[in-house]
Amino acid sequence: MTKNRVLITTVPFADKDKLPILLLENEQIEYVINPYNQKLTSAQLAELIPGFDAIIAGTENINSEVLANADRLKFISRVGIGLDNVDLLYAKEKNINVSYTADAPAPAVAELTVGLMFSLLRYTQLSNIQMHQGKWHRYFGRRFSEVTIGIIGAGRIGSKVIKHILTFSPVKILVNEPIPSLELKNIPELEWVSKEEIYKNADVISLHLPLNSETRDMINKVELLKMKSDALLINTSRGGIINENDLFEIMQSGHLGGAAIDVFQQEPYNGPLQKIDRCILTAHMGSMSVDCRSKMEIEATEEVVRFFKNEPLKSQVPTSEYEALLKNIC
Amino acid sequence: MTKNRVLITTVPFADKDKLPILLLENEQIEYVINPYNQKLTSAQLAELIPGFDAIIAGTENINSEVLANADRLKFISRVGIGLDNVDLLYAKEKNINVSYTADAPAPAVAELTVGLMFSLLRYTQLSNIQMHQGKWHRYFGRRFSEVTIGIIGAGRIGSKVIKHILTFSPVKILVNEPIPSLELKNIPELEWVSKEEIYKNADVISLHLPLNSETRDMINKVELLKMKSDALLINTSRGGIINENDLFEIMQSGHLGGAAIDVFQQEPYNGPLQKIDRCILTAHMGSMSVDCRSKMEIEATEEVVRFFKNEPLKSQVPTSEYEALLKNIC
Repeated sequence: MTKNRVLITTVPFADKDKLPILLLENEQIEYVINPYNQKLTSAQLAELIPGFDAIIAGTENINSEVLANADRLKFISRVGIGLDNVDLLYAKEKNINVSYTADAPAPAVAELTVGLMFSLLRYTQLSNIQMHQGKWHRYFGRRFSEVTIGIIGAGRIGSKVIKHILTFSPVKILVNEPIPSLELKNIPELEWVSKEEIYKNADVISLHLPLNSETRDMINKVELLKMKSDALLINTSRGGIINENDLFEIMQSGHLGGAAIDVFQQEPYNGPLQKIDRCILTAHMGSMSVDCRSKMEIEATEEVVRFFKNEPLKSQVPTSEYEALLKNIC
Repeated sequence: MTKNRVLITTVPFADKDKLPILLLENEQIEYVINPYNQKLTSAQLAELIPGFDAIIAGTENINSEVLANADRLKFISRVGIGLDNVDLLYAKEKNINVSYTADAPAPAVAELTVGLMFSLLRYTQLSNIQMHQGKWHRYFGRRFSEVTIGIIGAGRIGSKVIKHILTFSPVKILVNEPIPSLELKNIPELEWVSKEEIYKNADVISLHLPLNSETRDMINKVELLKMKSDALLINTSRGGIINENDLFEIMQSGHLGGAAIDVFQQEPYNGPLQKIDRCILTAHMGSMSVDCRSKMEIEATEEVVRFFKNEPLKSQVPTSEYEALLKNIC
């Protein structure tokens, strides 16, 4: 009998906790870890994919070019939550199942976001860069209770960010979310508003949205110019939602007090934002806490094991995701 | 009648809120703002001081050399809490009253500290420096619930830091404080331990102490080597408590996961820690939130006005501070 073969594209993998590897070895599943050791291009993945039955996937593009080459692929197990990188409809056509780890990354992404808010509010990263260059300037910052926070997207991650911020009471939080949870709706400190109102009135704006046809390029020059001249903008969700070139131009012209960008249209990122000292850049580290990353890898691997053993899957992508795509196409 | 004259040494002053200046002008008090626009040396201050009745002071050294030259000085109003820079006993001998703003800076210093903890725990400042140089590395970080936090000093600021961290439950916090408040003592998550236990067992160590003969050079090579090899060390209290050269040597040798230093033996800081990328450096910005800084400046100025109007002072340095000094000398 041919052994089941898994391609692990997401890196690093099993770096802090070896359990995912043990789970595969225990079931005699053959595996190959991404030999490029960085996010694969679709051309690289298309070349690697033949002969594999499953992928334990990161955020690399699993598009029609890749899937057309996937001669044996029956299962994609996403380490993470976003599905913008997977051509779900084409996968469905080819009878490829897709699962994801929807809840595991949320606590780590939420804490990274709150940490970036602190850094922006007090200009610590800017001071840090300058101090390492021998320049001493005491920046005036603001505390949470001095500003209006704007949260766009109050799902798994956005709602956790909101709960952290609420502990720095008194705070004023504007939220945009079409379908707020009942729990959040009952919190008196939250004001439910339109995106436009957040752009205009918030001092700190944080995005917690999936990338899809509605959110792609959502924040471009027009929206950036609606924001306060000293607004602080954070994106730990998906690259592509903020137009990076527009953000660069706007910030170079002096608009915005600061920004913190963890996710990019193309990763690894290499682009003009590197020239903007008051734009904090981090390397897609939202889910990179030891506990959350390990949890995601273990959950994604367990799902692969379940798939090969014909056991019921636990975290298959819900049909609503496919329906949303069909709706966007029509 | 000669007008009362005030020397304002702390800078920036009345930058965001002009009220302190208005308060002085309203009472026809003459004032001069530090013409050097940076922290004064004691030689500079000794030269400036003659002819002034009061100082609205920062952290510059107000030592015997300065006070010997102070021909008219009757009042020192500190913008801030630390008194290590004032020769309190000599001031008392010369009948110079001293007041301070003990409570105002605490919320801002506590939030800066928590923000720096986030930055260290997730290596965001390190990634930010590298990303601006075009280097992409996804660092593994830890969340609050994955680490043991060690707080040395649980007074006005340390206790606020503890309360913020408690909201990231579940957390484990070790605290060293000889006289803990009743409120803190009743919090079950806190474990009251010796400094030694914190050095050995904490993943994050934060100092919230005054600078005095007991704390000067408290953290030197010996103590640094007791800490875990990936420990994260924070000082937002006073320079001089950590031996900076020892910290540089230890970190250059690869010990400690990171550090965040906001206060220095000599400010503006210029020294070897600038070479250590995983040592976050900020420019004594603990109290520099708009609200806290304004509050401190207004309170310190109001105290000067009260002094000149012979009204009862509100925030005079308590006798316990003088007694502590006398005890240390004996």
